[in-house]
Amino acid sequence: MPTITTFAHSPDQGKGLARDMGVRWALEEVEQAYDVRPVPFDALKQSSHLALQPFGQIPTYEEVDLMLFESGAIVLHIAERYAGQGTRLLPTDANARARAIGWLFAAFSTVEPPLVAYTTASLFERDQPGFEVRLPVLRERLTARLAALSDRLGSADWLDGEFSVGDLAMVTVLRRLYRSGLLDEHPPLKALVARAEARPAFQRAFAAQLALFAASSPQGAAPS
Amino acid sequence: MPTITTFAHSPDQGKGLARDMGVRWALEEVEQAYDVRPVPFDALKQSSHLALQPFGQIPTYEEVDLMLFESGAIVLHIAERYAGQGTRLLPTDANARARAIGWLFAAFSTVEPPLVAYTTASLFERDQPGFEVRLPVLRERLTARLAALSDRLGSADWLDGEFSVGDLAMVTVLRRLYRSGLLDEHPPLKALVARAEARPAFQRAFAAQLALFAASSPQGAAPS
Repeated sequence: MPTITTFAHSPDQGKGLARDMGVRWALEEVEQAYDVRPVPFDALKQSSHLALQPFGQIPTYEEVDLMLFESGAIVLHIAERYAGQGTRLLPTDANARARAIGWLFAAFSTVEPPLVAYTTASLFERDQPGFEVRLPVLRERLTARLAALSDRLGSADWLDGEFSVGDLAMVTVLRRLYRSGLLDEHPPLKALVARAEARPAFQRAFAAQLALFAASSPQGAAPS
Repeated sequence: MPTITTFAHSPDQGKGLARDMGVRWALEEVEQAYDVRPVPFDALKQSSHLALQPFGQIPTYEEVDLMLFESGAIVLHIAERYAGQGTRLLPTDANARARAIGWLFAAFSTVEPPLVAYTTASLFERDQPGFEVRLPVLRERLTARLAALSDRLGSADWLDGEFSVGDLAMVTVLRRLYRSGLLDEHPPLKALVARAEARPAFQRAFAAQLALFAASSPQGAAPS
């Protein structure tokens, strides 16, 4: 049974925005049970965790003889390792498989960086000099990417045929926009996120991370 | 024979910093010939290119019945598709293969975003309000990642055993620091880049993109 690491105390108060969420979700899609080892913040930069994850982040993934990091690589590994169980997260056709992996990289390399730049600035940089000039620039860079993605998706259910690791990764990234209102400007993307969140595997993963937060918080889970 | 797209006119004047470089390099490592279709800047956002690359970027990769985008996915596809030719870019052992793919994602998801944030700001945002406060913050975020990567690499030749797609991607990203001086602060990373640039396949890829720039520039290639 694989073991993943997560934050010991969810910084988003159980909203499932940390990077363990995509890994949990992939494991639920392939119906593979897993163990969780929560890591306290002050242990992230200690040598025992750095041996698993050189950048001091979560999640990591461990199974017999394998230690892996990077959400994208972990999700891809899960899709390949458990291809005979539950939902097939990669198409069997070689070309369709390559395109699904393309969307997996697009989520983490092309959509996430401008999205994190915008959400980080809007949350944490309001008091910094130049913020009023800078935020609209970051917003424009992000909305250009979102518009391109929305145009490509159009009225399709998923990014390329059946649900795949590409959709899972893209939705994991897009969910970070939940309180920005930006998804409302791109109805196809809002529908994509809603469609994905309705999947039973997503709901099981979400409930599992929320339960961990509730157990770790003296006040219990905050209302969303 | 696969066809890739590149910028018709290299914005870095032939220094090989655009995203086609990693794809060219991977093709050279596996000793696979390829065609190049240069795309003018004003055609990147036109529908014919957006059909290949929804975000209006380069490179794309086309072979019979397959159109692919995202450098990471293209490099991974090349490694798998041409595994019997030239250098093996993915280990045959399943666990080592998963770890090599981990470094491929680390390059594009974990190292590139703070690196591009820093280099973009230092090149293009000097006149913006708050620049003097902001640049050191971006530099600190980047150097923390570089220090972690350098610590993990240590005195090894490559990131995990033999040269792989992970090294190829990481070096492609790190080369963008060439004029920042930051690699000088991390000798293991400077040595990694030098070791990679000495590979005959890298040199063939570099020469090919430089030749395209020279042919497209009335002044010829600029001295580096």
